[in-house]
Amino acid sequence: ATYKLLLLPGDGIGIEVMAEVKRLIAWMNQNGLGTFETEEGLVGGAAYDDAGVAITDATMALAMAADAVIFGAVGGPKWASVPYEARPEAGLLRLRKDLGLYANLRPAICYPALAEASSLKREVVDGLDIMIVRELTGGVYFGEPKTIVDLGNGQKRAIDTQVYDTFEIERIGRVAFELARKRRNKVASMEKRNVMKSGVLWNEVMTALHAREFPDVALEHVLADAGGMQLVRWPKQFDVIVTDNLFGDMLSDVAAMLTGSLGMLPSASLGDVDPATGTRKSMYEPVHGSAPDIQGKGIANPIAMLASFAMALRYSFGLGKEADMVEQAIAATLDKGLRTADITSEGCKVVGTREMGEAVIAE
Amino acid sequence: ATYKLLLLPGDGIGIEVMAEVKRLIAWMNQNGLGTFETEEGLVGGAAYDDAGVAITDATMALAMAADAVIFGAVGGPKWASVPYEARPEAGLLRLRKDLGLYANLRPAICYPALAEASSLKREVVDGLDIMIVRELTGGVYFGEPKTIVDLGNGQKRAIDTQVYDTFEIERIGRVAFELARKRRNKVASMEKRNVMKSGVLWNEVMTALHAREFPDVALEHVLADAGGMQLVRWPKQFDVIVTDNLFGDMLSDVAAMLTGSLGMLPSASLGDVDPATGTRKSMYEPVHGSAPDIQGKGIANPIAMLASFAMALRYSFGLGKEADMVEQAIAATLDKGLRTADITSEGCKVVGTREMGEAVIAE
Ligand SMILES: CC(C)[C@H](C(=O)O)[C@@H](O)C(=O)O
Ligand SMILES: CC(C)[C@H](C(=O)O)[C@@H](O)C(=O)O
Repeated sequence: ATYKLLLLPGDGIGIEVMAEVKRLIAWMNQNGLGTFETEEGLVGGAAYDDAGVAITDATMALAMAADAVIFGAVGGPKWASVPYEARPEAGLLRLRKDLGLYANLRPAICYPALAEASSLKREVVDGLDIMIVRELTGGVYFGEPKTIVDLGNGQKRAIDTQVYDTFEIERIGRVAFELARKRRNKVASMEKRNVMKSGVLWNEVMTALHAREFPDVALEHVLADAGGMQLVRWPKQFDVIVTDNLFGDMLSDVAAMLTGSLGMLPSASLGDVDPATGTRKSMYEPVHGSAPDIQGKGIANPIAMLASFAMALRYSFGLGKEADMVEQAIAATLDKGLRTADITSEGCKVVGTREMGEAVIAE
Repeated sequence: ATYKLLLLPGDGIGIEVMAEVKRLIAWMNQNGLGTFETEEGLVGGAAYDDAGVAITDATMALAMAADAVIFGAVGGPKWASVPYEARPEAGLLRLRKDLGLYANLRPAICYPALAEASSLKREVVDGLDIMIVRELTGGVYFGEPKTIVDLGNGQKRAIDTQVYDTFEIERIGRVAFELARKRRNKVASMEKRNVMKSGVLWNEVMTALHAREFPDVALEHVLADAGGMQLVRWPKQFDVIVTDNLFGDMLSDVAAMLTGSLGMLPSASLGDVDPATGTRKSMYEPVHGSAPDIQGKGIANPIAMLASFAMALRYSFGLGKEADMVEQAIAATLDKGLRTADITSEGCKVVGTREMGEAVIAE
């Protein structure tokens, strides 16, 4: 089979880490490990500079037609004052929404070799393996009204709207419960039902779904603020965490930072499986951002991006063996003591983006 | 002067830790350190059991008339299925809203004696001293519509609304900048301007306020998710953090947990100063909750509650010297090696709520 990939490097270090994925794809093509056709497009600030929007309709059409989108990162101070509708993040949000990528999978894994890089005590994070399942196409990110109105007298009023329908909560819940069955069989659902009506509905739908379809999985309800606390106190208590778009944004960033491996963490954003073709829309991106402070220096860690491509192999193309190969190559490279600057520790060899990418491919 | 206090112990360990404040008040009255008149009321689950609401109008009237409200904690599994409008938290939210307590001050301090109790490495948290200034009467907590509608077909739609007006952002910003001037002169303003219109307005108002009234204070803007990450990575980079109601809820809980001193942390919720009387409405409560899992065991840590009363002495009654006394007594008690179960470590003596309260008073 031939797979069509759309590569969207975006801005900042997105471009640098995507270069390593291109190298990996070329190597796989050459060595008969897959037939990948790639196209490349602009998104974020790069698209704005080129066309005045954060993503063009033409690029969106490519994304719709691709078997998977591989995404780098967007944003940077350069675009701090572009109009709200054209800000770099709007490109990312449009991709998520228009491709229907409602399920964002964010593993928070602490690589034993990197436990020292965490600000948490080793015993708190060593061996940590959490999967955060974040709802990605609903909530306050997309609800209307979302506006600023001028009230006169120098006063403005800003409004954002969090909206969730039953079906949106059910389908993300299903993703979480199904993942839990393949892991440690535990789901923690996080919301603020004590303050938000969307939390009340979220809680109610998860409870009913659990009773109806997943009684074999352990479910606990945790208030999102308490969940943030517990993540810091003793993260290993969690297996799968399922939560809404905004809480997922906060909680997954906190969880990622706990691991000391931010530059290592991949993510997958998935739509529904099309019953006709058996395929699903999908996008893969590192959890880290465009890191304008280190852009152009060639020191960014490409591992999160490479691991995101491994997730694509597994979730979009059923190439589980090949995905394992990539992940094992990453682990082996780390075991040899190679590190980018963000994860270095005593006795390790610091390398740049390209050297790290090449080392992983060599493995 | 005679000060009128309304004590609202609430539920769970709220009742147990409030008992120690009562002991402290009695001792201060006896020793001529103040003249405090106290009344007591029900709030939360306790009020619901008694009157079917989370706080009665009569108790609200007492709160309006008091010079300060001292609040314990509310909630617990016992009230998991009471109607939404009567849930325990509704009492707390009504107090905040009706008293106009828009400024929530949450210090996150790591007591050196307790640095070991943190899940973070000692060097990351030792000596940590952050002040989180959380907006408390606006945002998604109170915006309308806030509702669940039945769409038919087994589908419901939940809606919450985040609303912020210019003046609400300005007044909380002023509190933050003024506090920073008495501290390390740095404010970090946190929002999600890349996704939320309220974040855009928040950012704009803080920037303008800073330029107009506080150019001498250093201001940085941090995206709330990145802020959560930075809190975990290197919290000492922050001095004052100012943020909205919901982000403040999450971020202050994470910050509190970092310190390893959750059972130690007080908070103050303040309204505007009345130009006629020079006084302001105020409420003081521990950052921790009602902890149903340990209620009734007499092991809860009363220090957060006692420290909250110290904040009342300082912010509501101008009794700075007396506040210092209470805080020094807490530090001295810890120095002697007395600990409640939540903060114990090797070589310390574990005591219960009452023994800890008495030890602080003895100091
Ligand atoms: C860039 C931004 C719009 C995005 C989000 O808020 O979802 C990012 O923080 C993320 O978590 O993917
Ligand atoms: C009890 C709850 C309503 C409250 C809040 O969400 O504000 C609590 O979490 C807090 O932080 O004071």
